[in-house]
Amino acid sequence: ARPRVGYFYSGKKPIQSVADGMVDMTAADFQSRPVVITENLSVYDAICQLFLEDVGTLFVVDQQSLLTGVLSRKDLLRTSIGRTELDKIPVHVIMTRMPNIMYCRKQDTLISVAKKMMDSQIDSLPIINEKEGGLEVIGRITKTNITAAFLSLAEDHDL
Amino acid sequence: ARPRVGYFYSGKKPIQSVADGMVDMTAADFQSRPVVITENLSVYDAICQLFLEDVGTLFVVDQQSLLTGVLSRKDLLRTSIGRTELDKIPVHVIMTRMPNIMYCRKQDTLISVAKKMMDSQIDSLPIINEKEGGLEVIGRITKTNITAAFLSLAEDHDL
Repeated sequence: ARPRVGYFYSGKKPIQSVADGMVDMTAADFQSRPVVITENLSVYDAICQLFLEDVGTLFVVDQQSLLTGVLSRKDLLRTSIGRTELDKIPVHVIMTRMPNIMYCRKQDTLISVAKKMMDSQIDSLPIINEKEGGLEVIGRITKTNITAAFLSLAEDHDL
Repeated sequence: ARPRVGYFYSGKKPIQSVADGMVDMTAADFQSRPVVITENLSVYDAICQLFLEDVGTLFVVDQQSLLTGVLSRKDLLRTSIGRTELDKIPVHVIMTRMPNIMYCRKQDTLISVAKKMMDSQIDSLPIINEKEGGLEVIGRITKTNITAAFLSLAEDHDL
């Protein structure tokens, strides 16, 4: 459950309007846990991680735990068609690399995050923290989280 | 662009509240085109269709064009790991079958559709028409469509 700082309840129903509720939503309020792998993991092991963790996107980090790549279910499917030696291909060969990675920060509004995902036609963004030398992955936002936010707006206001 | 029956404009901004706008949204307003394949298509050809059409889910129909199954990117990835003979496996072997398919109708509210997707943890629903003997697929709703709806609420009201 996300924190409801600044909400006032009258019985079950918050006084805040749907518009105000929507504007107040941030990436941090609806984020999921990021699943992170290292650059030399094989494509085979990456696919196993994807199923094990039940996510659609994996984030790839270097030895300093800084973001270097992103792997989607689509990337993994493209690589695995008709190939058997998936245990011999390291993920860094097929991943999308920095600086071509879209990301957001935890204080970003969910509206801006939704816009970024729609504009760039991607299903998931890492939430990052700027560190010396790169970006640390601290969360994950997906279209599932936006769907959850849409639904929570409706439910919070008994729509 | 979805029809705006019953909206009144004052300049760019609709007078309707965000709450009313949200309640009025239906599956039909935000749907995508469904991509449909037949039961005997091979898994290999299904994956090609998925990439060609750039969708996350394929709907499988019988010779009467009635819905018999659903195939997700996840189903296809699971099947393709470490196998080469994907052209020899027909999709009906690996698809999720009726009656285990969640679906919706075009007049359903987007709120109810979002709830169905979140409750059943699926990314996409076929929009169907009831026919004698089965269900005809007439559309598709995904979490991308819900994200678009979320964003359009914000943009319609200059949030």
